[in-house]
Amino acid sequence: MGTKLPGETTLARTLGVGRSTVREAVRALVGAGLVRPRQGAGVFVIATEPTEDWPTRLRRAAVADVYEVRAMVEVQAARLAATRRTEADITAMRAALEGRRTAAGADHAAFVDADIALHAAVVDAARNPVLTDLFTEFAPALRQGLIDLVELLGLRDGDPQHGDARHAALVQAVTDRDGEAASRVLQTELDTTLAQLLGR
Amino acid sequence: MGTKLPGETTLARTLGVGRSTVREAVRALVGAGLVRPRQGAGVFVIATEPTEDWPTRLRRAAVADVYEVRAMVEVQAARLAATRRTEADITAMRAALEGRRTAAGADHAAFVDADIALHAAVVDAARNPVLTDLFTEFAPALRQGLIDLVELLGLRDGDPQHGDARHAALVQAVTDRDGEAASRVLQTELDTTLAQLLGR
Repeated sequence: MGTKLPGETTLARTLGVGRSTVREAVRALVGAGLVRPRQGAGVFVIATEPTEDWPTRLRRAAVADVYEVRAMVEVQAARLAATRRTEADITAMRAALEGRRTAAGADHAAFVDADIALHAAVVDAARNPVLTDLFTEFAPALRQGLIDLVELLGLRDGDPQHGDARHAALVQAVTDRDGEAASRVLQTELDTTLAQLLGR
Repeated sequence: MGTKLPGETTLARTLGVGRSTVREAVRALVGAGLVRPRQGAGVFVIATEPTEDWPTRLRRAAVADVYEVRAMVEVQAARLAATRRTEADITAMRAALEGRRTAAGADHAAFVDADIALHAAVVDAARNPVLTDLFTEFAPALRQGLIDLVELLGLRDGDPQHGDARHAALVQAVTDRDGEAASRVLQTELDTTLAQLLGR
């Protein structure tokens, strides 16, 4: 506990493997919550036993993968939506925001569906049919990821508003044609959730 | 020809429609090659007859949509790939680059498949299975878009190398763990092709 790992080069030489193998292994240890890199200082051992069972860790990693893809697609979609949204898009986004609020008292799956409907409305407002199709294809993976996320984090206890203020800010930024704010609000929302998930 | 369009506010008032409707209409005219915005100067009429038939224009717009989505996903994937690629990924990317070179003499569809195989290898190197799945689902739309693109641009006459140098630079940047260069090279490649497509 607290021990600093040797550097990559030393580890690679000692273990007789390539540096990229060492890097992959360290990444796996970080993912398992056994070591943690500290900026500019090196990688330190923070636990010697995995703190949770493998299935949970794998689910956590899978949700993190979903979030990485979401961020890629949705943050840029929000920026485009702010420049292209029509009046019909604004109406649709506001209805979805209201639907998300209503579903906050419902079961997990119903709330997740209402949440995805709002994010889909923002993506639609980017007015790119190829993007809309792609997001539709992505939705089932996103849905499973979000259900797992809610179960892993128990978000509903910690945040009774379910991030409503941030979602309202996203809709407002798109409505106001403020692409910078729209992408920033969404990136913050996704980063916040991902950080909770990864326990940082 | 050369006439400057009235401003958005004036047009909206004159036509009795919302500003967002005006913006959509102007965007459609830009897409049809009838007007062109000049930075800081306004929007100017550059043609009074569409220069090509509607089906061609629609295909062009569809390919532009595909390119917008590609850029969203692949540029960030290339950046991640540079930090996570394994030795096996490098081998796969080099084989795909070689396959793309070999296919340069083949028919359009075979070349497009070889091109997509290389881009898929870069996406795989980002080591995110959700991203890999998403790109696999996107591949058919990308394939059709690229076949249309090659037919629209007749790229093969203009560039007998088919962008080989830029693709080799992409693979090299990922191999060198240079995420900045990898994303920049790919963005340049996509922007260049998109600009040719849009005739800018």
